[in-house]
Amino acid sequence: MKTSTRVLMGPGPSDVHPRVLRAMATPLVGHLDPEFLEVMDDIKTMTQETLQTKNPLTFVVSAPGSAGMETCLVNLLEPGDEAVICIHGVFGNRMADIAERCGAKAIKVEADWGSPIEIEDVKIALENCNPKLLAIVHAETSTGVLQPLEEISRLTKAAGALFVVDAVTSYCGTELKVDEWGIDALYSGSQKCLSAPPGLSPVTFSQAAIDALDNRKTKVQSWFLDLSLVKNYWAGAKRAYHHTAPISSMYAMREALRIVLEEGLENRFARHRKNHELLRDGLESMGFKFLVEEQYRLPMLNAVRIPEGIDDLTVRKRLLEEYNIEIGGGLGPFAGKIWRIGLMGESSDANHVNMLLAALKNIIL
Amino acid sequence: MKTSTRVLMGPGPSDVHPRVLRAMATPLVGHLDPEFLEVMDDIKTMTQETLQTKNPLTFVVSAPGSAGMETCLVNLLEPGDEAVICIHGVFGNRMADIAERCGAKAIKVEADWGSPIEIEDVKIALENCNPKLLAIVHAETSTGVLQPLEEISRLTKAAGALFVVDAVTSYCGTELKVDEWGIDALYSGSQKCLSAPPGLSPVTFSQAAIDALDNRKTKVQSWFLDLSLVKNYWAGAKRAYHHTAPISSMYAMREALRIVLEEGLENRFARHRKNHELLRDGLESMGFKFLVEEQYRLPMLNAVRIPEGIDDLTVRKRLLEEYNIEIGGGLGPFAGKIWRIGLMGESSDANHVNMLLAALKNIIL
Repeated sequence: MKTSTRVLMGPGPSDVHPRVLRAMATPLVGHLDPEFLEVMDDIKTMTQETLQTKNPLTFVVSAPGSAGMETCLVNLLEPGDEAVICIHGVFGNRMADIAERCGAKAIKVEADWGSPIEIEDVKIALENCNPKLLAIVHAETSTGVLQPLEEISRLTKAAGALFVVDAVTSYCGTELKVDEWGIDALYSGSQKCLSAPPGLSPVTFSQAAIDALDNRKTKVQSWFLDLSLVKNYWAGAKRAYHHTAPISSMYAMREALRIVLEEGLENRFARHRKNHELLRDGLESMGFKFLVEEQYRLPMLNAVRIPEGIDDLTVRKRLLEEYNIEIGGGLGPFAGKIWRIGLMGESSDANHVNMLLAALKNIIL
Repeated sequence: MKTSTRVLMGPGPSDVHPRVLRAMATPLVGHLDPEFLEVMDDIKTMTQETLQTKNPLTFVVSAPGSAGMETCLVNLLEPGDEAVICIHGVFGNRMADIAERCGAKAIKVEADWGSPIEIEDVKIALENCNPKLLAIVHAETSTGVLQPLEEISRLTKAAGALFVVDAVTSYCGTELKVDEWGIDALYSGSQKCLSAPPGLSPVTFSQAAIDALDNRKTKVQSWFLDLSLVKNYWAGAKRAYHHTAPISSMYAMREALRIVLEEGLENRFARHRKNHELLRDGLESMGFKFLVEEQYRLPMLNAVRIPEGIDDLTVRKRLLEEYNIEIGGGLGPFAGKIWRIGLMGESSDANHVNMLLAALKNIIL
């Protein structure tokens, strides 16, 4: 297999550190080997630390972020439940779709793509139903919006509902405080600001979420994602076999988490901000306009409007073929209209920003 | 991370070839990069070849074998459907559990653990319901039974039902002819006789299965596993984004498939048989008795009764700690009563057999 050496500046996966690649190439031990159970324990502890939570039920789903999303929703929702789903991009829509597949009624709170959800709209929705949970995307990868969470968490709790957060793109790239912000269920992905290969989804559940799970009247519709089974493998005294964990990917996960903690969360967030500012200044000096208002912009996912007269695919193809740089196109209504430039984890790097700006100048100007 | 160098002779994962480990450590390209789409195409073609099928809908689920099982059942079953589920071990039970979570009625055909399902029992079950499908495990990893499939396929087709097969442990280790045997839906795992790391599940679907999917009255209950969405990423002209594929694991999968085809399926099956015979002769000369009658024994998963007076855990612990050899214990009613010795893929090797026999002799005799 001969692959090109890409610089990954799209919406994920991001570049993976050589230490993580090497960890993944470690010969395997069995999935119930005492040495592997130690790896799982390490991962659990470091996931708690990076999510700033003490939740005992913190682990990694053996499948990508979308399966993490499904894990949160299928375990907490039952037929007939009402769920407030906030939608300001692709991933809010996906949550509503999954909630409905659970037999729940999705009460949708929508905002224009590129803007955050309004507090007032959340308040109205919560008042007009009997919500089991409210689900919202912290960092909308399809639009580049950073959604403030604390006030919405407060309202959700006041309404007696669980607060469910999609942190796929924000995790390890910007402030995310599970316990302090009162998050009851959260999922992320391995391949964004954590910079591990795609395929795994870190998740965490509060005691209130576990209580909701314990009080279900019906079985969870997915066997593979059923927390009442999975938790015995990750957290049970007996470490009961459920499925065969993706051992090599877990080795990678462990090493990626170690790198995050060696850097320190605050330093990592600051690096993401700094490289975002470098990119922003460079793009704005070339005349680019950001999709999102400054205060709501994600540092790790920069959505910029494609200038008039510039063809989306032509430029992205040239970036990839001539410069080995991947950036992302727009999704849904933004297809052909925006680019999504990722500065996630290892990809959040001043040299990368400079390379991209230079390549874009050569192609466009 | 310091892990021991294990010899994996349990029920999976099996040893992974260094070429596969190296492939997995390749720096990543994006999941929609033209070069990655080529990798997916290679995997698809080689999966078809190793499954002996021309099914266009052949691909790899981005999660372990249990998720492959769930993919087959949630896509083909709807609430109110009747499904004949054959149970002669842990994995038949799991299929029945999932079928019921789909809202289907599971009509169970059972055999003693350690014996195959009887044709006559299948016939009676099919005659007494209106079956949407019949599901059966080809190689029961919990008992070591190889289930003959051809006659049951014929009966299932005659009853107008779809024939669904669990080939997690048989795939790439013993004869498995999807098209010739009339299999409509099949799932396997990456970590058994294919000898790739765990985490992926090769699947294939016949036209009849696709027709059943197209004629559903209800949405598939899982978004992540919904074939009507996944197939656009794997097989659609547009290769539409569904989820982020586990790129590194797919690199590993591709290399493992290449190794299988370089060896040749028939040679690989013969090697699995030969090393099984070597192990069998050695174990029998030490007085061990196999759980399963000779004609139904799996070559890659050898279930032997633990001799009277020998403590299961003590021996397995010594094998692991003193010899770095992993073998498997029994599941369910066989816990503490049998060992499951895997000779799968790279682990099916005469040196491994000799090492294990010598170590067992030293510990037991």
